[in-house]
Amino acid sequence: MIERLVIVGAGLIGGSFALALKEAGAVRTVAGLGRSPDAMARALELGIVDEVCATPQDAMRGADLVLLAAPVGQTGPILASLLPYLEPQTIITDAGSTKCDVVAAARAALGAHVGQFVPGHPIAGSESNGPDAAMPGLYRGKKTVLTPLPENAAGDVERVASAWRLCGSLIHTLSAQDHDRVFAAVSHLPHLLAYALVDDIAAKPHAGMLFQYAASGFRDFTRIAGSSPEMWRDISLANRDALLHELDAYLAQLTTLRAHLAAADGPGLEAVYANAQRARREWIEAIEAGSPPPQHQDTE
Amino acid sequence: MIERLVIVGAGLIGGSFALALKEAGAVRTVAGLGRSPDAMARALELGIVDEVCATPQDAMRGADLVLLAAPVGQTGPILASLLPYLEPQTIITDAGSTKCDVVAAARAALGAHVGQFVPGHPIAGSESNGPDAAMPGLYRGKKTVLTPLPENAAGDVERVASAWRLCGSLIHTLSAQDHDRVFAAVSHLPHLLAYALVDDIAAKPHAGMLFQYAASGFRDFTRIAGSSPEMWRDISLANRDALLHELDAYLAQLTTLRAHLAAADGPGLEAVYANAQRARREWIEAIEAGSPPPQHQDTE
Repeated sequence: MIERLVIVGAGLIGGSFALALKEAGAVRTVAGLGRSPDAMARALELGIVDEVCATPQDAMRGADLVLLAAPVGQTGPILASLLPYLEPQTIITDAGSTKCDVVAAARAALGAHVGQFVPGHPIAGSESNGPDAAMPGLYRGKKTVLTPLPENAAGDVERVASAWRLCGSLIHTLSAQDHDRVFAAVSHLPHLLAYALVDDIAAKPHAGMLFQYAASGFRDFTRIAGSSPEMWRDISLANRDALLHELDAYLAQLTTLRAHLAAADGPGLEAVYANAQRARREWIEAIEAGSPPPQHQDTE
Repeated sequence: MIERLVIVGAGLIGGSFALALKEAGAVRTVAGLGRSPDAMARALELGIVDEVCATPQDAMRGADLVLLAAPVGQTGPILASLLPYLEPQTIITDAGSTKCDVVAAARAALGAHVGQFVPGHPIAGSESNGPDAAMPGLYRGKKTVLTPLPENAAGDVERVASAWRLCGSLIHTLSAQDHDRVFAAVSHLPHLLAYALVDDIAAKPHAGMLFQYAASGFRDFTRIAGSSPEMWRDISLANRDALLHELDAYLAQLTTLRAHLAAADGPGLEAVYANAQRARREWIEAIEAGSPPPQHQDTE
């Protein structure tokens, strides 16, 4: 039983964590701490939090688990504000989409207490934000990646893993470096590409006509461009090196495709399209078959 | 009442057209003509077509409406094969995703009979192909763009428009040039970008690990990369100039974003992301409000 859970940020991610643990009967009190009084009041109204705390001091008294669910750029300042009130039993985890920068910020902010911080990243989300988007089932069947520090006690990592399991999540562990390389490719780059396309189209003089004929393919391709700009600005900057690396690889790929197109090279285009279709079909089939993750990446 | 409808290609697009007209009680006989005997046999089994024709001559006898629903690269050869059996009452239309090349192919193939060809493009689809993917509701509430020729009789354009309306579709008219420019931006480019991303990731040495952590954002972003490579090769080549133009604009946009990222220019990134989020939200709101299309683009 978690006696006192503190969620810093009561939006989609923090709110869904609180609701899932409440549904599981695994938490006694949820305290909310955040920069937006309106969001916090709404979280209280929705039963996501049981109390809204005005200061870190109020929030942290007696806390056994703290989840940071704010844009990753705020990790350092938030941790620094919590440090004076950190109790011996308190474990802090986070839900940030990048991990190397979060770990660096945690080391800088917490110093000798960094062992009380267990970095994590639930692989679930939605383009909707705020407390109203929170739902207890958000993490059910989804992976949560932990990137534990050498300083973390095994029991503390297990406390965090156990909380995510109670939300229905499957625990994976990766190094922070591997995590950031992987998500630069399969998440951060697609977000940047989707934002870029919508902005590109919106800036054209005949944008109104273009949007009029955009259909379901465009809607799905750009769904992630509905995500929070502030959150994705932070993620882009936090994982800049890996994202630049993936963006450059993608630009090289587009340059190759452009050459095929300019040369009217049908077989060249079709080879890329067919390989993509095949790879995606195999991926979807593996998901649908519920294939277990490779042994070495799974702590379960 | 359509006495005899011929669908050339009995996959998702042609099959759904036939099923919708049957459901509306608007067609007496549907004849199927296609290069794949298996697909045709399946279309017969599913009740999409009432007869499978071995030759254009068999198919065209007594036909009043013919729908070409094959990859656009086959438009010229198919029309040339139909021409000798074209009867005075027969109107041919198509469902191709590009129009300038289709019109050029029709002029070359049909010569003085080109007035019997009314070019069209239903804005509906799915990443699934083949007769089993066909469904009577595919076109319901979706736009169909017609790009009539100066040679078309108004009554013949209306016969085609009327068939699509019976499928539940909303008729728009555009010039072939405007059509191709619009769809290069909102459809053809996103397909190329999605194929490029999946192929790029599949080619990396750690592709298996990457796909393991790809989640719903990636799935939606790449849904259109599940589409037929042959069909999209043809579309890419058929609309090459407009697609190159859009691709170059997008590459310039990515280059700008890359510079923001390399310079750690948070406000620069956030401005692009926020503009995209806003433009997409307005677009979705307009769709949900069912806003009518501007007067000058709608023949209804």
